[in-house]
Amino acid sequence: MIIVKVGGSLGIDYDAISRDIAELWQVGQKLILVHGGSAETNRISEALGKPPKFVTSPSGYTSRFTDKETMEIFQMVYCGKMNKGIVERLQILDVNAVGLSGLDGRIFEGKHKDKVRSVENGKTKILRGDHTGKVEKINTQLINLLLDNGYLPVLTPPAASYKGIAINVDGDRAAAALAIALKADSLLLLSNVPGLLRDFPDEASLIKRIPANDVENYLEFAKDRMKKKVLGAAEAVAGGVGRVIFADARIENPLKNALNGKGTVVS
Amino acid sequence: MIIVKVGGSLGIDYDAISRDIAELWQVGQKLILVHGGSAETNRISEALGKPPKFVTSPSGYTSRFTDKETMEIFQMVYCGKMNKGIVERLQILDVNAVGLSGLDGRIFEGKHKDKVRSVENGKTKILRGDHTGKVEKINTQLINLLLDNGYLPVLTPPAASYKGIAINVDGDRAAAALAIALKADSLLLLSNVPGLLRDFPDEASLIKRIPANDVENYLEFAKDRMKKKVLGAAEAVAGGVGRVIFADARIENPLKNALNGKGTVVS
Repeated sequence: MIIVKVGGSLGIDYDAISRDIAELWQVGQKLILVHGGSAETNRISEALGKPPKFVTSPSGYTSRFTDKETMEIFQMVYCGKMNKGIVERLQILDVNAVGLSGLDGRIFEGKHKDKVRSVENGKTKILRGDHTGKVEKINTQLINLLLDNGYLPVLTPPAASYKGIAINVDGDRAAAALAIALKADSLLLLSNVPGLLRDFPDEASLIKRIPANDVENYLEFAKDRMKKKVLGAAEAVAGGVGRVIFADARIENPLKNALNGKGTVVS
Repeated sequence: MIIVKVGGSLGIDYDAISRDIAELWQVGQKLILVHGGSAETNRISEALGKPPKFVTSPSGYTSRFTDKETMEIFQMVYCGKMNKGIVERLQILDVNAVGLSGLDGRIFEGKHKDKVRSVENGKTKILRGDHTGKVEKINTQLINLLLDNGYLPVLTPPAASYKGIAINVDGDRAAAALAIALKADSLLLLSNVPGLLRDFPDEASLIKRIPANDVENYLEFAKDRMKKKVLGAAEAVAGGVGRVIFADARIENPLKNALNGKGTVVS
């Protein structure tokens, strides 16, 4: 089993990703795709006159502040445009894809955090009305039902809270939780960088290998969104996933290259 | 088995619909919800600077001209905002809903019509680049898989063409095709009118009953979007569905009222 997580940043080649998935799927490789949609959510939010708002936690993690209206835009982009765009690409390539959010059948479930701590101008504020959380539980029954019957799941945030409310969750860590729950051999975290860089943004400074027992020591090299990928990787290998690979989604054959070890391999 | 189709017009009470669905579901009633999203698609299209375009065919049917950009907005609203909004309402009510488009697992499949005939100022024009079609095939295997495992399917256009391309299809007729394929007892077509009106928009002129073998003679009373509902009803009863009920989705207990015959009953 391979879990492929593809980010939602600019430059990602979804056609190339879909072609690689189709080739692997058609030779019998069990596979699940998890995707994002952040850049497009920002664009649509701006266009609708509701510019995105990001908060930085005291520990330095950046996340989207997701009030109810932002959640609706988030769902439009992640579950509508991005998810169905990928499902269509796969269906055209004869892969019987089924696109679902974490809300559907509560595939991704977790606690709803209504409050978030935000550092602004050196001061920490509490913001309320956030629809956010972290995936704690995976509904493997629905996923296995789909896989066992020949459907390729294409999954996306939001998740469901324990009360059934839509919550924004980090896609990389959701993919990591999924990989653990399904005892995946490989978790690929694809984005618009070639892997973890020792000296961001110098791509020549790519870190090729990280020992599984030492992932957290590499957190210092991770900038911005890469931080959650490293955190997700640490969780995945600690949870029994064979290997995690950070790799480039802007190139031809992104999955094959990643599976061949091109990128940063955590194992 | 009951198939409930709820339109996407203004005034529809999705909270009331969700409450009724939850009550029926929890006493073991097998049920599938199909929904629309046209009014919200118009609103978002306008807001994004891509106003909706409607065409009227020579036989008098109105439909959305769906070029590639419109299809993306359509998917954002139908598959994102509307679908996940309903799934969330049901999840909050402890119904394990799963929201899917017709593209997912090719639940709704049909021919892609790239060309559409449009009557403008009395002249018939041919417009190309339309992503539209009609549902001809239902993937009952995936639907039954979900139902048999306790999941309530919440379905929405678009459908998949035979080549896997997203196509806009009429939701009422898709629901009719679904009702036939699943041998449903009842098909409820809920919208923002109390049923078929002999003298539109006079709600006192409600037609209470239409004999199954005489549906097409009532087409003359149907205005605009109601035409496709009557057509869908004719197809459903001809295909073996026990009864079709046109009813009001703006009121409290819309499903219970409809099932008690409040509306226009075709049987």
